Amino acid sequence: MPEPVLIYSRFPKAQMVRIGERYDLLDAAGKPPIETFSAEQLKPIRALITAGSQQIPPVILDTMPSLGAIVCYGTGYDGIDFAEIRKRGIVVGNSPGANAAAVADLAMTLMLAATRRLLPASDYVRSGDWAGSKPSPMMRPPHAITGRKVGVYGIGEIGRKIAARCAAFETEVGYHSRSKHDVPYQYFPTLGALAEWCDILMVAVRAGADTQHIIGADILKKLGAGGVIVNISRGSVIDQVALVSALENSAIAGAGLDVYEKEPHAPDALTKLPNAVLTPHIGGHTVESHVAMQDCVIANLDAFFARKPLPYPVEQGARV
Amino acid sequence: MPEPVLIYSRFPKAQMVRIGERYDLLDAAGKPPIETFSAEQLKPIRALITAGSQQIPPVILDTMPSLGAIVCYGTGYDGIDFAEIRKRGIVVGNSPGANAAAVADLAMTLMLAATRRLLPASDYVRSGDWAGSKPSPMMRPPHAITGRKVGVYGIGEIGRKIAARCAAFETEVGYHSRSKHDVPYQYFPTLGALAEWCDILMVAVRAGADTQHIIGADILKKLGAGGVIVNISRGSVIDQVALVSALENSAIAGAGLDVYEKEPHAPDALTKLPNAVLTPHIGGHTVESHVAMQDCVIANLDAFFARKPLPYPVEQGARV
Repeated sequence: MPEPVLIYSRFPKAQMVRIGERYDLLDAAGKPPIETFSAEQLKPIRALITAGSQQIPPVILDTMPSLGAIVCYGTGYDGIDFAEIRKRGIVVGNSPGANAAAVADLAMTLMLAATRRLLPASDYVRSGDWAGSKPSPMMRPPHAITGRKVGVYGIGEIGRKIAARCAAFETEVGYHSRSKHDVPYQYFPTLGALAEWCDILMVAVRAGADTQHIIGADILKKLGAGGVIVNISRGSVIDQVALVSALENSAIAGAGLDVYEKEPHAPDALTKLPNAVLTPHIGGHTVESHVAMQDCVIANLDAFFARKPLPYPVEQGARV
Repeated sequence: MPEPVLIYSRFPKAQMVRIGERYDLLDAAGKPPIETFSAEQLKPIRALITAGSQQIPPVILDTMPSLGAIVCYGTGYDGIDFAEIRKRGIVVGNSPGANAAAVADLAMTLMLAATRRLLPASDYVRSGDWAGSKPSPMMRPPHAITGRKVGVYGIGEIGRKIAARCAAFETEVGYHSRSKHDVPYQYFPTLGALAEWCDILMVAVRAGADTQHIIGADILKKLGAGGVIVNISRGSVIDQVALVSALENSAIAGAGLDVYEKEPHAPDALTKLPNAVLTPHIGGHTVESHVAMQDCVIANLDAFFARKPLPYPVEQGARV
């Protein structure tokens, strides 16, 4: 008989089909599991699948006394309270790198769309205003990407792929992370120094308590009036109120965001801004990266139930 | 007294300011010059500035009997009838490479936006449908870019920059041009073979009579149902009716277009398609590339009036 596994976050059903072929899935779909399942059903649950960003409060962990493994679908695990799960002897796994290329590609899509003002350009053609020789929103040309300074914040697998892609656009690339890495880009020991130096700031840091709102009004001010910020990490990294204010007041030139402080809530203050390019957290959303993430989830579950070490374990503090 | 120079095509005034500091500009703004200026005014005109794509019929050349130089603002010169201008002893100059990086960047913007379906994703967030948990247009994930085959048609300066950028996205890159070049990409001796091989076709060929409608229903069929086509060259290269039909019937997956058969007319059949990303011929439209193009125009004009060879001459048949 297949082992029962709880689906903690809300996932499209299609993403769980392959996992469901091996495990008996109980889908809590983002709600506290006890609202959907009985205490009897939850009692034997030894493993759960989560989106990584959703918190799992102690009171919910209490409803699954047999829980031994938390498996994150994706690279992130910022919703995990490591002190709490360590106390309970629970192991955590993720899908490292499985979606890195897809996320880096979306970061580039957002960066290019924001800098080349793709949305107003597209609207101008689609509305018929171009054909009608109406005044163009593109009258003032944007700055080129070539020759500009791109700062990558966080130089893990996604950050490296972003850096390599940006370098191919004939830009100067610099980065900040907690320590210097063996990469061919200029290192900045502080985020402030990176923001001061760069024109385009690509946020690829692993999110956690120590990066909460680390990008606020001061960093955005350093980025400056010509600056563009792109975030494909987690919404928590940026103080969203400060970002909206910076975009409204042209303290920075534009933003490309795939993540938000409270998903799926992209606030009206943000969605009405013409200089923000917004996507619904689709960074890792490609056919190939879903297959790769599912491979990691299955490998982690299989190993756990076989009493072997997880092949893709998460160590707290592995942040880069 | 500054030499008079005719502005033949319609340009935003801002683009002519620097040139106007050195020459006495007569702006015909895209209309036959004789509609705006008298025969007396046109008679001494020895040089004109054109967008390169606009044709200059013999009857118009007849109104400028002193014409000795045609200076194209940009890289293109597909509107020039070389047999005709050679007969009249007119030299032609352009702005080679001045906007190559900007055009390549826009090609990448269009490719990424089309493959990652940026416009529906953006609309989903902006409309509030994401926050309202309405069904997502992104439910079926797109294919990743990494690992896909990108075909570059035309391997001049713009094509090379596109190829280098695509390679950084961990794709396989191939190309077709009239001859094999010293580039690190697989060569395909025919456009058909390239289209058969690739998933994404980037059109960067120099336009002319020999490339008119070279991409028609047959090439699009070879590109196939998963295929994406991007054109930043000239609209004339693609049979637009065949392209609209291929997009309507899902014979190909998507398109990113900066150029059209009759600009500024992007037909309704095209603008209503959800799988086309359309921009208003802004490939070379950055602050830096305008400066570089103006530098070339000024250098060509200065040399011509000093009776020196043009620094940026166009030789007919220099197509790559």
